[in-house]
Amino acid sequence: MAGLVEKRLEALGVVLPTPPAPIANYVGFVQTGSLLVVSGQLCIGADGKLTAKGKLGGGVSSSDGAAAARACAINLLGQVKAALGDLDRVTRVVRLGGFISATPDFIDLPKVMNGASDLMVEVFGDKGRHARTTVGVPVLPLDAAVEVEGLFEVA
Amino acid sequence: MAGLVEKRLEALGVVLPTPPAPIANYVGFVQTGSLLVVSGQLCIGADGKLTAKGKLGGGVSSSDGAAAARACAINLLGQVKAALGDLDRVTRVVRLGGFISATPDFIDLPKVMNGASDLMVEVFGDKGRHARTTVGVPVLPLDAAVEVEGLFEVA
Amino acid sequence: MAGLVEKRLEALGVVLPTPPAPIANYVGFVQTGSLLVVSGQLCIGADGKLTAKGKLGGGVSSSDGAAAARACAINLLGQVKAALGDLDRVTRVVRLGGFISATPDFIDLPKVMNGASDLMVEVFGDKGRHARTTVGVPVLPLDAAVEVEGLFEVA
Repeated sequence: MAGLVEKRLEALGVVLPTPPAPIANYVGFVQTGSLLVVSGQLCIGADGKLTAKGKLGGGVSSSDGAAAARACAINLLGQVKAALGDLDRVTRVVRLGGFISATPDFIDLPKVMNGASDLMVEVFGDKGRHARTTVGVPVLPLDAAVEVEGLFEVA
Repeated sequence: MAGLVEKRLEALGVVLPTPPAPIANYVGFVQTGSLLVVSGQLCIGADGKLTAKGKLGGGVSSSDGAAAARACAINLLGQVKAALGDLDRVTRVVRLGGFISATPDFIDLPKVMNGASDLMVEVFGDKGRHARTTVGVPVLPLDAAVEVEGLFEVA
Repeated sequence: MAGLVEKRLEALGVVLPTPPAPIANYVGFVQTGSLLVVSGQLCIGADGKLTAKGKLGGGVSSSDGAAAARACAINLLGQVKAALGDLDRVTRVVRLGGFISATPDFIDLPKVMNGASDLMVEVFGDKGRHARTTVGVPVLPLDAAVEVEGLFEVA
């Protein structure tokens, strides 16, 4: 029986991925006390491929960048689901850290990162309003356009 | 009636900004337990404009960069004030994360970040001594020269 | 009398550095509750010099980068030892944040960061499996090739 948050995801047409098994000596998440720390997630879509490859200000448009940030957010929620079983156990999205692969002249980073922030509020409502840090980076793993890490308060 | 910390700020001639209302689906801070997580703050001055725009190693000098980091720290404290009402409730500055917009050959990043660290110790004394991570980035939102995020322990 | 973790370090031939005294208004670590937050550590070796200087994709090879990440991890453990006295008090490595100085076309960042992750698991076993965020940056303090920050759960 799906919880409230998963019903909202379903209404949005979002299917959470099952996180792949770790291929190195790290894991997708660690819970410590009431804090769930989730590893940086790349913009990998349901087909297992990057939704956007390259750089903002290079070949990637702002709207593709925002969609990529949304994909990262979906992957964060996939990790949270794997950690907690039930997304309704999230009592607050505490923080998102957004890393946007960008050329040195691309300053419109917040608009890209909104793709991740918006999903959190669509799904969790006011509990989804989080602290946020957004920065440009020269390059990300696999040449992904966006990477987002997350911190969640859980019950 | 101003607390001890605000009296020190006043003696330093620092006026805390009232944080602007959020313009997207994130907020300036989230408290979880005794931790206050504050969003990355740009080097925006009292006049609402960036104190330094562009890159260290480009048009921005190290001293202007340090002043920009100090402006970020002031904005962090504005968020903490908005969160807690009274800055004396801060029991420890736990961590600052500093992102310096820089050209690939500008290695003097710590001196820039000291502008933020110094303010914390001027204002909080030994409670202001924090863990810190300082890195260069190719670009920041609005073309800001410096962005600093903060983590505070509060009572 | 060395604890279990330090015996493993000894078996690996790893000698923990005594962290240098802070030279600015920040510190190597802050403990808040059961969380130990450790400042970003550069790839400085036992001789006090950078093990790798410059950029991945520039003059620094992937294997030298991984060795540099391992050096950062050793320095993290030096800070943890200074904080706790006994590394056996670490109940979980919660998170590592890896910043790799890289040219915009160097995408093989995770392999570099594995140098830090692998050490944590060699030393702490399953408690060493951590959440992780790995990104490229254009430049790091002192022109270091790698910087890693850490978050530990401690008893």
